[in-house]
Amino acid sequence: MTVNTASPVLVVGSVALDSVETPFGRADDVLGGSGTFFSSAASHFAPVQLVGVVGDDYPVEKLAVLTERGVDLSGVEQTAGSSFRWRGRYRHDLNAAETLETHLGVFSHFAPKIPEKFRRAPFVFLANIDPRLQLQVLEQVEKPRLVACDTMNFWIESRRPELLELLKHVDLITLNDGEARQLTEHTNLVHAARWILDRGPRHVLIKKGEHGAFMFTKDSVFFAPAYPLESVFDPTGAGDSFAGGFIGHLAATGDLSDRGMRRAVVVGSAMGSFAVEKFSNTRLLEITRADIDARVQEFRQLVAFDADMSA
Amino acid sequence: MTVNTASPVLVVGSVALDSVETPFGRADDVLGGSGTFFSSAASHFAPVQLVGVVGDDYPVEKLAVLTERGVDLSGVEQTAGSSFRWRGRYRHDLNAAETLETHLGVFSHFAPKIPEKFRRAPFVFLANIDPRLQLQVLEQVEKPRLVACDTMNFWIESRRPELLELLKHVDLITLNDGEARQLTEHTNLVHAARWILDRGPRHVLIKKGEHGAFMFTKDSVFFAPAYPLESVFDPTGAGDSFAGGFIGHLAATGDLSDRGMRRAVVVGSAMGSFAVEKFSNTRLLEITRADIDARVQEFRQLVAFDADMSA
Repeated sequence: MTVNTASPVLVVGSVALDSVETPFGRADDVLGGSGTFFSSAASHFAPVQLVGVVGDDYPVEKLAVLTERGVDLSGVEQTAGSSFRWRGRYRHDLNAAETLETHLGVFSHFAPKIPEKFRRAPFVFLANIDPRLQLQVLEQVEKPRLVACDTMNFWIESRRPELLELLKHVDLITLNDGEARQLTEHTNLVHAARWILDRGPRHVLIKKGEHGAFMFTKDSVFFAPAYPLESVFDPTGAGDSFAGGFIGHLAATGDLSDRGMRRAVVVGSAMGSFAVEKFSNTRLLEITRADIDARVQEFRQLVAFDADMSA
Repeated sequence: MTVNTASPVLVVGSVALDSVETPFGRADDVLGGSGTFFSSAASHFAPVQLVGVVGDDYPVEKLAVLTERGVDLSGVEQTAGSSFRWRGRYRHDLNAAETLETHLGVFSHFAPKIPEKFRRAPFVFLANIDPRLQLQVLEQVEKPRLVACDTMNFWIESRRPELLELLKHVDLITLNDGEARQLTEHTNLVHAARWILDRGPRHVLIKKGEHGAFMFTKDSVFFAPAYPLESVFDPTGAGDSFAGGFIGHLAATGDLSDRGMRRAVVVGSAMGSFAVEKFSNTRLLEITRADIDARVQEFRQLVAFDADMSA
């Protein structure tokens, strides 16, 4: 398996500037956004095609690190106006981000235009944007092998009909446990997953942050823990890095069997665990394939047990 | 492996009457208490010796179900006064019990007296009672192979020196994530576990309820998810049932290797998952070894993945 034989992955999401405070330090105007984290993680496995928008104030030279990793930025439009900025803070428990400021800027008028050369990407990730825009992306692509989407509480509240329409057209949805409960009005995650599976996707990936992730299908359920890190530095972008590792690995192997999907969840968990070790996408860009493989083996050790009760 | 070849397990804990309200119904004055849940779970694997106290109002005929399962109740003293009663409620999310009433009764004067014939039990579980009493139990037993203890926030606050002394004398402690953080003043569970490991126990079992459980040693970490149940009926007693399955399985196999300990954690998780399916210890008493083995295999399927990244 090499990047050369991997299928391209198209991702449509945000490219932002984050300012983050954690108990361990702060970072100002660093690379952020769902598209950025996803691309950084996925680029370890497959060629990535990123579609997004930045303002004319965006320090585009900062994106060179993505180009160097084989991320095609020709779908990132630069338009007049200010860039998407997010400022947030994590308290000591690091569980929930406290948003101090969100400035959407040019992102509020984002209308994704998929470049001609991106339209046949076999793997598509619709990061967390307005479901109406996610649907518009699907109108522009040609028979992808796998379409996955993310969403959030804001869209579940304000764009419910469009989100339900989107579900009919995606193979997989990733969302966190709170969002799954909000969308389905089921407290029990097994019930919540089944509700979603009945509305389109063949796979539902429910992320529980530090508590791991479930992948549900009609026939099976798989659980991958979050890696018990000694130092979680900045949780920003963990979910999108997870998705990047997950979809990137699928694009690299082409294996969409239950076996392939399970391994991809673990690769996603590994990438999420790296993402939180430093600010921004710094750690994702440092690590090698050997680091990733080693962490996947650590996940193996973490859950390994012998189920033979007679021994 | 049969119960006949298993070593006896001594448990010292509460025998109570619980009244529980959940979104699915209510139960009044049903069998409860840490000793009861532990015994019910452990009795599937090993002979259990229970030490506790009940008041003269206790419907002792209700305990016959334990005797029938091979639990030796000769250490359960009946004294003048009222029995330990707990009344609690679970809201829709079932995560946290809301205690409506705690009446300690005779339990507030409990001074465990270990019957002569129980003093050589190779496996000892000190359920959640005053650490001073837990220490008194250890003075009465003779060289057990494994001593495990549980504790809670109240003792961490009010009996810290005694709890730290106890840590020097136990092989294993079980506590939930909040208690681990409170005891160690470390938010990060890896740090919290190391803090505890530095103070005596060779194994630290951190229970996260519906989010699974970690077992830490100086050399390794193991994680077992909670089983994703479709219907959690009543979470009361899940932790003690977990401990009962865990210690009971160890007593049955005698295998305290890393391999044996990991499997015991999964057996514990299985017993915890059964406990919550009905009120009180009802479900624990219904299930067979075949049910338990089947659930252990379901845990295996839940976390199974192929870590070979080249395939």
